[in-house]
Amino acid sequence: MAKETIDRLRRIEGQVRGIAGMIEDGRYCIDVLHQLSAVKAALRRVESEVLKNHAATCVEDAVRSGDPEAQREKVAELIDLFEKQRR
Amino acid sequence: MAKETIDRLRRIEGQVRGIAGMIEDGRYCIDVLHQLSAVKAALRRVESEVLKNHAATCVEDAVRSGDPEAQREKVAELIDLFEKQRR
Amino acid sequence: MAKETIDRLRRIEGQVRGIAGMIEDGRYCIDVLHQLSAVKAALRRVESEVLKNHAATCVEDAVRSGDPEAQREKVAELIDLFEKQRR
Amino acid sequence: MAKETIDRLRRIEGQVRGIAGMIEDGRYCIDVLHQLSAVKAALRRVESEVLKNHAATCVEDAVRSGDPEAQREKVAELIDLFEKQRR
Repeated sequence: MAKETIDRLRRIEGQVRGIAGMIEDGRYCIDVLHQLSAVKAALRRVESEVLKNHAATCVEDAVRSGDPEAQREKVAELIDLFEKQRR
Repeated sequence: MAKETIDRLRRIEGQVRGIAGMIEDGRYCIDVLHQLSAVKAALRRVESEVLKNHAATCVEDAVRSGDPEAQREKVAELIDLFEKQRR
Repeated sequence: MAKETIDRLRRIEGQVRGIAGMIEDGRYCIDVLHQLSAVKAALRRVESEVLKNHAATCVEDAVRSGDPEAQREKVAELIDLFEKQRR
Repeated sequence: MAKETIDRLRRIEGQVRGIAGMIEDGRYCIDVLHQLSAVKAALRRVESEVLKNHAATCVEDAVRSGDPEAQREKVAELIDLFEKQRR
């Protein structure tokens, strides 16, 4: 997952830099706002990758460990994360 | 959880009925839109209640069962749900 | 717009009532959560209808009035609404 | 608006670079996900600044112009933008 996700983050970095440049150039606000929407959409894709990776690694480790406390902790973390995202 | 959540849903039902009445009465669109936002916020609170209840019951049962497949299924369901909500 | 939007709100009312019934019947939490997502999606469609109707009527009236203050008020209302929705 | 908004975008750029670093360092996924949420929140603040600036400049120009077509175009752009953001 890492390489692909890091590449995506580099592109997002460039997009953010590009938006700053648009504002410096006095580009039309609506165009800037659409670019900001595009960056948020790209971040959501990164979130999806990280989330799926988390399920396949950290959460899977807790399942294999057979340790109920480790498993409860993983579930609580996920629910806490999603509660924050939906606010 | 059930009684409190069902009461909240009854109130939401009433709010939705109220919005239909606002439109029938030709009420100002912006007021209708703010009411729609309020209903969505109330639904998010119901989601939180149901999600926390799910963690404390269904997911907890899977943890206690010690059955890795049941646990994996619970995690996959949660991730699938949150992926849909973030689209 | 009204008839179509009111019909949609009636259906949403029924969906909310249905969710309360699911909880009373002890239906699986994840199914309830997916239904809640469906109701929120339906509400977003109602929002779109009301918003477009607002633009075509109330905002259009302000444009035709040629009254700058009325126009500023319309713009301020829209921006306030969207700020709230994005929180 | 520009200076403050550009500074905010520079910080966001740094945050995105930091997240890539977290992933390279194998930091815990949940910490990465919370950082991604923080970046999205920061982007929403930039959106608010740009939107308010747009209302005070471009939209205000259309109001002062007294040109109904220019005003209609501004309203249509705003509604289109918010429809995209709510999808």
